[in-house]
Amino acid sequence: MQGPKFDGRQRAVVQRVRPEVDGGRFPIKRTIGEAVVVEADAFADGHDQLRCNLRYRRRGEAEWTEVPMQPLGNDRWRGSFTVEQLGRYEYGVLAWVDHFRSWRRDLARRTDPADIATALQLGAGLIEKGAARAGDEDAPLLRAWALSLTGDAPIEQRLKAALDESSASLMDKYPDRRFVTLYAHTLEVTVDPVRARFSAWYEAFPRSCTDEPGGHGSFRDCESRLAYVAEMGFDVLYLPPVHPIGRVNRKGRNNNLVAGPDEPGSPWAIGAEEGGHLGIHPELGTLKDFRSLVARAATLGIEIALDIAFQCAPDHPWVREHPAWFRWRPDGTVQFAENPPKRYEDIYPFDFESEEWWALWQELRGVFEFWIEQGVSIFRVDNPHTKAFPFWEWVIGELKREHPQTIFLAEAFTRPAVLHYLAKLGFSQSYNYFPWRNTKPEITGYLTELSRSEGREYLRPSLWPNTPDILPEYLQFGGRPAFMIRLILAATLGASYGIYGPPFELFENEPLRPGSEEYLNSEKYQIRSWDLLRQDTLKDLIARINHIRRENPALQYDWNLRFLPIDNEEMICYAKSSEDLDNIILVVVNLDPYHTQSGWVELPLEEFGLEAGHPYQMHDLLSDARYLWHGARNYVELVPQEVPAHIFRLRKRVRSERDFDYYM
Amino acid sequence: MQGPKFDGRQRAVVQRVRPEVDGGRFPIKRTIGEAVVVEADAFADGHDQLRCNLRYRRRGEAEWTEVPMQPLGNDRWRGSFTVEQLGRYEYGVLAWVDHFRSWRRDLARRTDPADIATALQLGAGLIEKGAARAGDEDAPLLRAWALSLTGDAPIEQRLKAALDESSASLMDKYPDRRFVTLYAHTLEVTVDPVRARFSAWYEAFPRSCTDEPGGHGSFRDCESRLAYVAEMGFDVLYLPPVHPIGRVNRKGRNNNLVAGPDEPGSPWAIGAEEGGHLGIHPELGTLKDFRSLVARAATLGIEIALDIAFQCAPDHPWVREHPAWFRWRPDGTVQFAENPPKRYEDIYPFDFESEEWWALWQELRGVFEFWIEQGVSIFRVDNPHTKAFPFWEWVIGELKREHPQTIFLAEAFTRPAVLHYLAKLGFSQSYNYFPWRNTKPEITGYLTELSRSEGREYLRPSLWPNTPDILPEYLQFGGRPAFMIRLILAATLGASYGIYGPPFELFENEPLRPGSEEYLNSEKYQIRSWDLLRQDTLKDLIARINHIRRENPALQYDWNLRFLPIDNEEMICYAKSSEDLDNIILVVVNLDPYHTQSGWVELPLEEFGLEAGHPYQMHDLLSDARYLWHGARNYVELVPQEVPAHIFRLRKRVRSERDFDYYM
Repeated sequence: MQGPKFDGRQRAVVQRVRPEVDGGRFPIKRTIGEAVVVEADAFADGHDQLRCNLRYRRRGEAEWTEVPMQPLGNDRWRGSFTVEQLGRYEYGVLAWVDHFRSWRRDLARRTDPADIATALQLGAGLIEKGAARAGDEDAPLLRAWALSLTGDAPIEQRLKAALDESSASLMDKYPDRRFVTLYAHTLEVTVDPVRARFSAWYEAFPRSCTDEPGGHGSFRDCESRLAYVAEMGFDVLYLPPVHPIGRVNRKGRNNNLVAGPDEPGSPWAIGAEEGGHLGIHPELGTLKDFRSLVARAATLGIEIALDIAFQCAPDHPWVREHPAWFRWRPDGTVQFAENPPKRYEDIYPFDFESEEWWALWQELRGVFEFWIEQGVSIFRVDNPHTKAFPFWEWVIGELKREHPQTIFLAEAFTRPAVLHYLAKLGFSQSYNYFPWRNTKPEITGYLTELSRSEGREYLRPSLWPNTPDILPEYLQFGGRPAFMIRLILAATLGASYGIYGPPFELFENEPLRPGSEEYLNSEKYQIRSWDLLRQDTLKDLIARINHIRRENPALQYDWNLRFLPIDNEEMICYAKSSEDLDNIILVVVNLDPYHTQSGWVELPLEEFGLEAGHPYQMHDLLSDARYLWHGARNYVELVPQEVPAHIFRLRKRVRSERDFDYYM
Repeated sequence: MQGPKFDGRQRAVVQRVRPEVDGGRFPIKRTIGEAVVVEADAFADGHDQLRCNLRYRRRGEAEWTEVPMQPLGNDRWRGSFTVEQLGRYEYGVLAWVDHFRSWRRDLARRTDPADIATALQLGAGLIEKGAARAGDEDAPLLRAWALSLTGDAPIEQRLKAALDESSASLMDKYPDRRFVTLYAHTLEVTVDPVRARFSAWYEAFPRSCTDEPGGHGSFRDCESRLAYVAEMGFDVLYLPPVHPIGRVNRKGRNNNLVAGPDEPGSPWAIGAEEGGHLGIHPELGTLKDFRSLVARAATLGIEIALDIAFQCAPDHPWVREHPAWFRWRPDGTVQFAENPPKRYEDIYPFDFESEEWWALWQELRGVFEFWIEQGVSIFRVDNPHTKAFPFWEWVIGELKREHPQTIFLAEAFTRPAVLHYLAKLGFSQSYNYFPWRNTKPEITGYLTELSRSEGREYLRPSLWPNTPDILPEYLQFGGRPAFMIRLILAATLGASYGIYGPPFELFENEPLRPGSEEYLNSEKYQIRSWDLLRQDTLKDLIARINHIRRENPALQYDWNLRFLPIDNEEMICYAKSSEDLDNIILVVVNLDPYHTQSGWVELPLEEFGLEAGHPYQMHDLLSDARYLWHGARNYVELVPQEVPAHIFRLRKRVRSERDFDYYM
């Protein structure tokens, strides 16, 4: 029989550490300043006392910081740490049997004097060993303590000395950790900027950003448009691709297979003789203009987000320079994108099984690097689920190692497993099924899943009521109220949301054809001119809502969402609150864009810190109206043609005669 | 930038493989002949067709066997294999993008002739490559097929050839697996004998197995008693420790601190000058007698299970021979078992933090090996949660490697996390909280948890209504009916169960004192003499129930348990069925040992394969009575003083006039 390769004396067990994604295969995500609350099972055989610590460090640091975990009962422990810097942190859990604490617990229970005397002697020995582990300062204190347990003093006196609290705390500093058990996995946290968790996005086509009808908007026009975006209170202005647009097989308006000579084509058909993914479409301006736009936006608190679409138009320079990056057909042509019998001949996908995949990966990484150098740190990635998954894990990992401020939004409108997997791989935010969740059970079920299930540790949803690809049926038929409803839902259900404008604020709702979710006269294929000054624009409502989001911390987090009962299936009610209950937001929405609806909402008074008998004030932050409510059940009525929602801030303190200056 | 250490072209993803315990850290458990049904997420980027295989092998084999998994939708796949031999199996999941299948799917959708022609050329190339991977027999067939896709034949003809099913199946045999993705963990299955899943245990003190009043029973007496145990239909006769009993600090009757000179002491105080864990208590007989008992039991289909209690009486030879295996107190004495202020001075626990822990482990392993040599393969392990956990994983792992027929029952009456952890470490069966689950919600909740939650993959419950340590309150007050109720519950809710007799069949119900769950005059501390011939013994009922268990496969599994509605809180109804629905057992129990109860049970007719309009027969296997039932809701009334339960076998076929010989 061979000798052992392990120390069998590690009696403590650590298991079921949470949060943990796929056994530690993927990191969880947090934003700067957030807490990482960790739980674990920790126990040992028998009745000995256990100590259990959480440890953490920034990646690359040699030293761990340890914090004690507290027992929750049933062998479950909890501890937490706060992530203070961008980048990757590591954490783990460790536990060990603490003979000193076991001894002390037992000592307090002993009754037989002979037994106590023996135990005191044993304890003195344990403390002596602690002294040997202690520093110069504490060792003499511990030795003196050990001495006081033995010797000639009366046993009651020695027992009292042994049970001294502060000496025990001193001893706790020098535990015997020879047989410490470390949890099998080192777990990781990606720490992102706050905007990865809390952000309001506005998507707009720069070429439509001109007031000159029929003209081609430029980055300079975009600069002028920044004030408009800032007035609405957005954090992020996201631009579809800004690169030269291919001429070969260019699409015409409304996705026509043939483009007229003056048609601009789709910005997603990237690359022409003027350049590829590092180039700028000449009519938009120059790289200098782009940098100027980024800088100007920054002064308004807006970040420019770029679209990263890894595909090429047939005349992209890479097709000529790197033929091995594409799949070639037996007829000597490059394989275009297709889903037979549909053909997308203006687009060549990359072949991620290319022999030269490593060179391709590096070049694609270089695209991100280039735009990061131009001041961009937010990227919206087009159809990531049609590019090889190992590439995303590698490229986001590499980029965030160098540039931990970067944020990646996955356009992951795909099957659930794939949507989740992309988030695990590193995407900071994810598009999701929100556009297709419109009824009360759909919204309740889906948002509960997003905010409560284990996936929340790595998947941050971004809620979009529309995109250039998606004009949902609900918006097509519900008129202006439908847009208000979906806006309010997106902006208050989700800490991150976005709209594609100006079609959104101008409630553009005509589809390409009945049954389609494509826009008629979509900006994807043509330049549009928008009347931003229309009286009925939703601009002011948007501004109001973004203001409310900024003022109320409860709306800046996803996990605190909680649905509340309301006795009308056309109405939905939910609350978000800060941990200290200082900021409690209650949202009631009429989901029916056609009819006035009313109902009784039911509040969990006690959980909101409200006393049953006292009135409280509901301050509607949308209308600025204030309502005095009383008790758990209260009546709400909403007219969709006016404002189809209340966004209440609950104000617990209602003044009474006792507050009057001369009352006492 | 360094070159990559991986191949980025592995585009398939395999994740969330189930069953999997703690990321593969622990094996799942099955018994011989059972299926291992495996599910996994498998997907790749884009729209390519995927293939996903389950692979398995016995531990130590070089070759894997692969079976295709079938898609369940939403990127979930399922496959299975059957474990045919005892020991350890390994399994894993792998997936790859199959360009041939993708090509074929797309080809069937293509409509443009030029497009089809190009695709046929491409396909011919894929098939040529397949031919290069194929064996001598199939390669020419594939080459011929490839040729038929190109050439001068009309395109319709070539397309038809390309879509030929049997050729495609041939090609499927030679996939391009260069970029196969293997799931990150190799998972394991422990394959146990059927008795690990399905067994009926009878525990009895051999020293009480004599018909001579006041005498000390021996193994020879036990041999005579075997017929009695076999008549009741038990598979396993479990004996408390059979070793020499310590004399130092020996306990007297009713746990008295002082034993009289003729008192026999507790069999769990193991070891005296006559020997230790390898010895036999002289009054029980010799090792030869023990072997004879084991052999005789085998002829009756009974296995002898031994109690393994790793602790020593003060006069155990190991205390003298291996002082380092114990903890010594400052007063020069060995630390006895204690939970201050309680002292158990007749017991010395081992010190699993001993410097000589490795020698201790080997010696303890040797104890198992010794008894395995005597023909024992079932061990009931006393208080495993007070011995170091790493020891159990090691010792059970080593023993089962050499002796895969062994079964270990953990006396794990401890906290949930520890109970589960011991099962993960390797124990084949586990005592559990069944003795304290008596009401309908308690039973429903607990048995649902045991049979449905993930823990079932490694934890096999053994249900005991009583043990020498536990006379539950329910049995103390419910009289004979309570014993019948608990017996029927244990034997039909659980595939494995046991009773401690003769106190059980003679419904001994007096506690040591009010509020205690200890037996008065417990056999743990004294020899008892039992009147096995009493008229009112439950022996016949036990025999009947064990017979029913053997005849009905549905009762031999745990996972098929399903609770059914019955509109009386004092009654419980549940069903177990074989997978083919050939054997459906419905149990209705009156949980109230005092009063007659009645209620309406509700059957899921469709799921049991019953037609709504047809009557069906309920055959009560306890009373042999047969009832004609009709529809989902049927009435049941149970008198506890008679038999407090029905164990129905559902017989779908009711004869009608059409079955009459001369009807047609």
